[in-house]
Amino acid sequence: MKLTVLGSGSAMPTPERYHSAQLLEVRNKQFLIDCGEGTQNRMIQFGVRANRLNHIFISHLHGDHCFGLMGLISTLGMLGRTADIEIHAQPDLEPLLRPQIDYFCREFPFQVKFHSFSPYQSAVIYDDRSVKVTTIPLKHRVPAVGFLFEEKSLERHLIRSMIEAYEIPVRLLKEIKQGADYVTSDGEVVPNEHLTTPPTPPRRFAYCSDTAYSEKIVELIRGVDCLYHETTYLNEDLFRAKQTMHSTAMQAAQIAQAAGVGRLIIGHYSARYREIEPFVEEARAIFPNTVGATDGAQFDI
Amino acid sequence: MKLTVLGSGSAMPTPERYHSAQLLEVRNKQFLIDCGEGTQNRMIQFGVRANRLNHIFISHLHGDHCFGLMGLISTLGMLGRTADIEIHAQPDLEPLLRPQIDYFCREFPFQVKFHSFSPYQSAVIYDDRSVKVTTIPLKHRVPAVGFLFEEKSLERHLIRSMIEAYEIPVRLLKEIKQGADYVTSDGEVVPNEHLTTPPTPPRRFAYCSDTAYSEKIVELIRGVDCLYHETTYLNEDLFRAKQTMHSTAMQAAQIAQAAGVGRLIIGHYSARYREIEPFVEEARAIFPNTVGATDGAQFDI
Repeated sequence: MKLTVLGSGSAMPTPERYHSAQLLEVRNKQFLIDCGEGTQNRMIQFGVRANRLNHIFISHLHGDHCFGLMGLISTLGMLGRTADIEIHAQPDLEPLLRPQIDYFCREFPFQVKFHSFSPYQSAVIYDDRSVKVTTIPLKHRVPAVGFLFEEKSLERHLIRSMIEAYEIPVRLLKEIKQGADYVTSDGEVVPNEHLTTPPTPPRRFAYCSDTAYSEKIVELIRGVDCLYHETTYLNEDLFRAKQTMHSTAMQAAQIAQAAGVGRLIIGHYSARYREIEPFVEEARAIFPNTVGATDGAQFDI
Repeated sequence: MKLTVLGSGSAMPTPERYHSAQLLEVRNKQFLIDCGEGTQNRMIQFGVRANRLNHIFISHLHGDHCFGLMGLISTLGMLGRTADIEIHAQPDLEPLLRPQIDYFCREFPFQVKFHSFSPYQSAVIYDDRSVKVTTIPLKHRVPAVGFLFEEKSLERHLIRSMIEAYEIPVRLLKEIKQGADYVTSDGEVVPNEHLTTPPTPPRRFAYCSDTAYSEKIVELIRGVDCLYHETTYLNEDLFRAKQTMHSTAMQAAQIAQAAGVGRLIIGHYSARYREIEPFVEEARAIFPNTVGATDGAQFDI
């Protein structure tokens, strides 16, 4: 998995921090998580080509998480795209966007399809042979969810020298990668463990923004390799965080610690702060393996 | 008048060139002309504060000229604005935006009002004591207009030393600035020309984008101090310009020359060109007083 942060700002953009958007690449597929205004500009500025992007996930219906959709869809249309775009969001989004899609995209050779989910309970909303996406109900001023991206179990790795030594036909390699033993023409059974090494462990990434501090999410994100959790405020502005139903850096770190995640990425910083180092320091005091997102930052998960 | 170019790109943005938007300041008022995606980001990046912006003019309903409206309106709402925002556009825009305004801006202490105009004939669509705005029907794939901004006649400038020598009371200065003579207590008539110098000539700015080459606009923009005319293509791509109903740099210069304008600003360059110098050179060969717009460029008119 590779994550590219396209926007690390919150409701008010700053010269350096655009509205929320992240591109997650999983086994050659691209998934866009939120799509604030300027998402397409950030993609172009950071050299991100969205030619393998088919699914977009919108966490909640505040403008800083979805106002970039029309521009992105239009630009994909001009780039000669033919595959449909599928948007996963709460039911309210489609009637807000459909009139504009019908008007501005009427000559496009692809459709924009909406798949709606309830923001009130966790559910699997996307499932293919390599990735599963589950919603994580959050606590915000409007209904909001996070998204858990789980890679599915990978195939075992072939030990090339053994495959060659036994002269195993290519047609059998697929089932051997899936764990089958090999039976020679003499009837000898070669156990799979002699022919393969264990698969790379599947990765899990959780995106949680926007949300107030909520221990309810801990079980849903337990042990993920990487958690993106918003940190709109520093702890010195805890009152303001509570009032606006956002989190502080300290709270994000507490969630990461309680859930035993591998790494914490923080972001969605309020425009009132110019520097992000204080956020990273505040979070690291509780959860050392914390990094601060910036626009354009890339993370291998 | 002062013009700030917020976006000099066309349908496809580039890392340096955002979608169309220009801020025109006239006697302490701000007018936004078009509002492509990222207009609010450009304002923030270029240090433009939109606190005197009340009127927005949209030339036509292609996304690269209007997809920044929702984000800009939302941000103005968060900045504590209370004055209404008035959008001047073709009738189709309001039903496309109203559902989003009702949904995302429902708690705002101001209203978004739409004033619609016909794109098919020239008409005065805005008129206050200092500025008048007239539409300029253009020739494009969808109905499109340009906008002519005309400053109204200014007051004459007082000659301070004369005002003091005659000890003219403050209450009379307003009418003297408007051309009145002064009658002393002895009945002596002091002609206005002894007390004032002529007013600064009112300025006129015309914005024409998007449009194919159209001589019909020449009379409407004759003699303006400054013309912004799109130049999506170089003349070597004339065929493509015709096909998409855009203009070449040469054509923009021909229009500027035919209309006898003071200065030509070109922009709306296609993303296929990296450098803008060839546009400027091509236009200057016909109309020497040409400058190329870049994002963030400011022009005194």
